[in-house]
Amino acid sequence: MHKNSHVVCLTGFKMSKPLNIFILGANRGIGLQLVKDIVATLNVNKLFATYRNEDQSKELLEYAASNPKVKTLQLDARDDSKFLEIAKKVEEEVQGQGLNLVINNAGVYTERPQRLESLTKETLLFHFEVNTVAPLLFTKAVLPLLETAANRNSTEQGINRAAIVNMSSTMGSIAENSSGGEYAYRSSKTALNMVNKSLSVDLKPKNILAVVLHPGWVITEMGGENALITVEESVRGMLNVISGLDDASNGKFYNYAGKELPW
Amino acid sequence: MHKNSHVVCLTGFKMSKPLNIFILGANRGIGLQLVKDIVATLNVNKLFATYRNEDQSKELLEYAASNPKVKTLQLDARDDSKFLEIAKKVEEEVQGQGLNLVINNAGVYTERPQRLESLTKETLLFHFEVNTVAPLLFTKAVLPLLETAANRNSTEQGINRAAIVNMSSTMGSIAENSSGGEYAYRSSKTALNMVNKSLSVDLKPKNILAVVLHPGWVITEMGGENALITVEESVRGMLNVISGLDDASNGKFYNYAGKELPW
Repeated sequence: MHKNSHVVCLTGFKMSKPLNIFILGANRGIGLQLVKDIVATLNVNKLFATYRNEDQSKELLEYAASNPKVKTLQLDARDDSKFLEIAKKVEEEVQGQGLNLVINNAGVYTERPQRLESLTKETLLFHFEVNTVAPLLFTKAVLPLLETAANRNSTEQGINRAAIVNMSSTMGSIAENSSGGEYAYRSSKTALNMVNKSLSVDLKPKNILAVVLHPGWVITEMGGENALITVEESVRGMLNVISGLDDASNGKFYNYAGKELPW
Repeated sequence: MHKNSHVVCLTGFKMSKPLNIFILGANRGIGLQLVKDIVATLNVNKLFATYRNEDQSKELLEYAASNPKVKTLQLDARDDSKFLEIAKKVEEEVQGQGLNLVINNAGVYTERPQRLESLTKETLLFHFEVNTVAPLLFTKAVLPLLETAANRNSTEQGINRAAIVNMSSTMGSIAENSSGGEYAYRSSKTALNMVNKSLSVDLKPKNILAVVLHPGWVITEMGGENALITVEESVRGMLNVISGLDDASNGKFYNYAGKELPW
């Protein structure tokens, strides 16, 4: 990320093209706030936002209805057989511009607390499927769109070119795990951190960045009411981090305040 | 691990009880060599060794036939419905002594190279199931046996009391991933490292240690012929590390030479 605020300002003067952005998992909590704040603060052409169940996505659907830049798409992140169809719909909208930013935000954390005594194979594989496999296979499906954006924009690397943001958690940091338990959630996020690291290496020659973010312990349905920060604070911080991504950020793990986290 | 050789010698004089040891995945390569070297170098009461297919386990079965301390058990590591039955068989043999050491060695690394373009959900979930979920659920199933051993032996922590060794790989180190790819194998081993970390925290009050080991790049069917060390060198090194485990090793990641590895 840019350490120097002058650099951020100068980048702003380059009048980058409007961005095409995709958020996987955006019907509530952090995903929904990302939709709103991205529209409010970034130069957006189209913002694609997925939801799983229409019933639980009223706010997103209403918001999108009054914001022509926002396109909602129904998708269960586990249903990878639909990913290419989704990529095709995006292509129809962006018409050869590609995608500049893909935020894989869909995630689960169920059967809590995840103690050793109560663990099942079903719970473990469900977390790997949603939290690790889905972001990886979705990234694979939209890779041609990221490549298109990366090739059209020959500025320095960052979201004006092409970037992938995978939503992880400090719960996935092995180094910071001092309280144990939570086997399924923790290990699926740790696995996502590794997936992101391989993506960052493999996609570097294509000028596509890949980073993992920790949103903080956020007051949402997932985070619960004892959490430490509001979803607004978390998302404001993360968008600062995302906007400042550059070559040096590739493959790294940041929290919402831009602090690099240990693996 | 013991840094001071005097400590190792003094521990030796305590005349520890003969050990009961379980190796999950022992029909070939590192697992088979562990069986032979453990019998040759440690004070063993019973050594349990699992194999998946009888056809591919001739050497193990022949070796066990001439070594009354070695008990072989047929088990597919994915078949967690059999784990309690296996634990019961162990209990019948060890008669209230419990298990001092469980080595989760079963693992897969298929569909190589695991490039982004060719990845499938099936390959990814298969690796998580065998490399991450199986060692965790197997540990859960034999936990009462580890607890029994830990409670019977009030010496300092280590394999004379109770320990779990999960076979990982530097391929699972996010920090050391500079070549990318290998998504399924890498992320399943990274996830195993996290699982081990939670086990090390959760089982510490029960005096059961948990560590992850990297065997080195070993000349085996999995490692291929360009590998760097022989299976004999790898196993000799790992048994040194395993024999020296103590309170300070708990939750850590070592290679076969005893060097601590980054996450």
